[in-house]
Amino acid sequence: MSDSPLLHPADNASVREADTSNVFHSWSAQGTLAPFVIASGKGARIWDYEGNTYLDFSSMLVNVNIGHQHPKVIEAIKAQADVLTTVAPAHANNMRALAAQKILSHAPAGFEKVFFTNGGADANENAIRMARLHTGRDKVISFYRSYHGNTGAAIVSTGDWRRIPNEYSRGHKHVFGPYLYRSEYWATTPEQESERALHFLERTIQAEGPASIAAFLIESVPGTAGILTPPPGYLKGVRALADKYGIVLILDEVMAGFGRTGEWFAFNAFDVVPDLITFAKGVNSGYIPAGGVIINNEIAHAFDERVFPGGLTYSGHPLAMASIVATIEAMEEEKVVENSKHIGATVLGPGLNALKDKHSVIGDVRGSGVFWAVEFVTNRDTKEPVDAAWMGKLKAALLAHKLLPFMADNRLHVVPPCVVTEDEAREGLAIIDAVLTELS
Amino acid sequence: MSDSPLLHPADNASVREADTSNVFHSWSAQGTLAPFVIASGKGARIWDYEGNTYLDFSSMLVNVNIGHQHPKVIEAIKAQADVLTTVAPAHANNMRALAAQKILSHAPAGFEKVFFTNGGADANENAIRMARLHTGRDKVISFYRSYHGNTGAAIVSTGDWRRIPNEYSRGHKHVFGPYLYRSEYWATTPEQESERALHFLERTIQAEGPASIAAFLIESVPGTAGILTPPPGYLKGVRALADKYGIVLILDEVMAGFGRTGEWFAFNAFDVVPDLITFAKGVNSGYIPAGGVIINNEIAHAFDERVFPGGLTYSGHPLAMASIVATIEAMEEEKVVENSKHIGATVLGPGLNALKDKHSVIGDVRGSGVFWAVEFVTNRDTKEPVDAAWMGKLKAALLAHKLLPFMADNRLHVVPPCVVTEDEAREGLAIIDAVLTELS
Repeated sequence: MSDSPLLHPADNASVREADTSNVFHSWSAQGTLAPFVIASGKGARIWDYEGNTYLDFSSMLVNVNIGHQHPKVIEAIKAQADVLTTVAPAHANNMRALAAQKILSHAPAGFEKVFFTNGGADANENAIRMARLHTGRDKVISFYRSYHGNTGAAIVSTGDWRRIPNEYSRGHKHVFGPYLYRSEYWATTPEQESERALHFLERTIQAEGPASIAAFLIESVPGTAGILTPPPGYLKGVRALADKYGIVLILDEVMAGFGRTGEWFAFNAFDVVPDLITFAKGVNSGYIPAGGVIINNEIAHAFDERVFPGGLTYSGHPLAMASIVATIEAMEEEKVVENSKHIGATVLGPGLNALKDKHSVIGDVRGSGVFWAVEFVTNRDTKEPVDAAWMGKLKAALLAHKLLPFMADNRLHVVPPCVVTEDEAREGLAIIDAVLTELS
Repeated sequence: MSDSPLLHPADNASVREADTSNVFHSWSAQGTLAPFVIASGKGARIWDYEGNTYLDFSSMLVNVNIGHQHPKVIEAIKAQADVLTTVAPAHANNMRALAAQKILSHAPAGFEKVFFTNGGADANENAIRMARLHTGRDKVISFYRSYHGNTGAAIVSTGDWRRIPNEYSRGHKHVFGPYLYRSEYWATTPEQESERALHFLERTIQAEGPASIAAFLIESVPGTAGILTPPPGYLKGVRALADKYGIVLILDEVMAGFGRTGEWFAFNAFDVVPDLITFAKGVNSGYIPAGGVIINNEIAHAFDERVFPGGLTYSGHPLAMASIVATIEAMEEEKVVENSKHIGATVLGPGLNALKDKHSVIGDVRGSGVFWAVEFVTNRDTKEPVDAAWMGKLKAALLAHKLLPFMADNRLHVVPPCVVTEDEAREGLAIIDAVLTELS
């Protein structure tokens, strides 16, 4: 197999064929796959095996914040690979302590420890576990418009003692978070949307029984759901409800954190501090699978005497840790978070709003940093979403113009790496403009 | 931070202090941690920052099958790091197709596709998902003596459409698997234990309602639960019950697979073929977090037209894929699986049984390959387990003799890397012998 032609592919078709014959794909019907082929990349560009280069306006799954193939992070992975590639989580290793210190240096005051996982799903799993055990309560309230990971059965299929402290019965309640463009609360201003969504949330707490609710689990800025930047006062209002009813506030920063919104943590823009912060993606741009929970002092010390009944083999994996240290250092040195904020404020924000003025198919533009949603509608008054066929044409046209997009429902998410330059951002906007002109 | 003394530690204490101050640990009370410190390793040896070298009889969490710092796997990771470190799962990349092909080349006939995950927990998550959706049934039957991962809440806390096909209510049933040494079925021979455990399993199926049961989820050889090699006929009997009642048979090979028992898959020794195989750990020795599901044709094609509602950002991560390809190639070239079988048959098996003859504190020895459990009792007739204090003394004495052990309950699991040499295996046995003599 070392001499497999797949090691040095000459064309895209052979890779696509080998992939669809042997690989089962996420969130897909398997019979009609025609995956886009990627050979390599650099910064905000990727290319295939046939010399076609694309502007990456997806950051893959909104995770390559530092751009493709950052040399400092690659060097750190290679250097650590020469020293130690794997270590059990019970043992101590220098790189894990250093990664925790780097992450904590960007967290608000009062956060003391980091629990490492393989990604965002198990970060949220462990935050929920901490909240339930700390409060002695069961239910978790989250948004209908949210994604927190795809896991839900392994610990209850487990038979040994580790299952027992993790069995919960009443589970999960969902509410509508604020989303003024399609308000569920008959609101017409951001302030009204914020106030009414908070009122509805408090009524739900009261109706469910405050003493049954362990946690709020909320994306600081719901991402795949539509980059739904919360209106003024909303997150502060959730914080106040958490305090009033003794509920743990978990903010999910898996997609929104580490520069995506133009802040180290998206909640920094909203003058609020959660109890637990979950992260993955941007912390090391996915160069090695990694995620985790940043834990405030109160909850960290709640487990000083009591066993925390959660864990995983690759918690604090040395290569993941080395890539986190190098990523955060490079982001600091190269002012990557500042660049994200600057690009959002001076290029993407004004540029996308100008496209909205020009193209009536754009119903709404919202976001910050390199985290923007463009919502397409057939009619601005009814806000009727465009259909899947139209979105398919949009995707094909963008790819034909050498831009790799991120699409969800009736939206284009404009989510390039945080290192995107002004010129690249303008180039992407020009492609979107040209394609919308073609399609109109 | 680049100049942190942690980058080049001079002693263990500074690493231990930085770790316990900043890192929250799996399955532990956090106030009394005194973690063992590991700097690096090679093959079956690891060492700390002060020049102390240990024989690794734990393989960390029973995952370093190919040994520490295998040069071929490290080179493959470094080479892939220079090309592409991360890619979204929807896209195609050569290394993912190649890794799937390598894994499928060792699977039984009839297996067609591989779904990749970050580890064992999400491998089992996705196998359960496939079984539930394929059968239209809900319940999963597994063993009380089992561990299948620590996740159980993220998808139900998720609000968007991806939650809906993943909501199940009646859940999980547990039975006692066969374990002759402490039989739950009043059995006195392996054949009787097998027959009675199967009878009890069938009565449970009938009482729960066969039409409600989606899957059996069973470790081929339950690992952390005690390396409970199934008695003759048991797994074939489970296969027959799966066929009789239309239940999907998922065999969890996360710990037992890829050489650990002396076979590529542990079930190979039992003349049985499951419907889904879950793996992690040994597939790449944990050099990069990775796991997955090997899917038979029937279930793979059940999702040709229907969307599979599961996925994760790092599914088919390029560095993980490169490390899988290199690991399997090295295992083939160096006959690592054959070595595991040989060491079990000629050194560890005879050696541990000789220790049982010599030390009355050993109640039972069982296993194969490099996957052995030694069960300690205060009395061979009552089989009363030794207490935690005795196990603590055992652990301290083994470490003092420079052997890093794996302990669970009243057992020592003798689980060195599959590349352990005859001399190293004998050295480890001699240390265990000496320590048991000291403690008696």
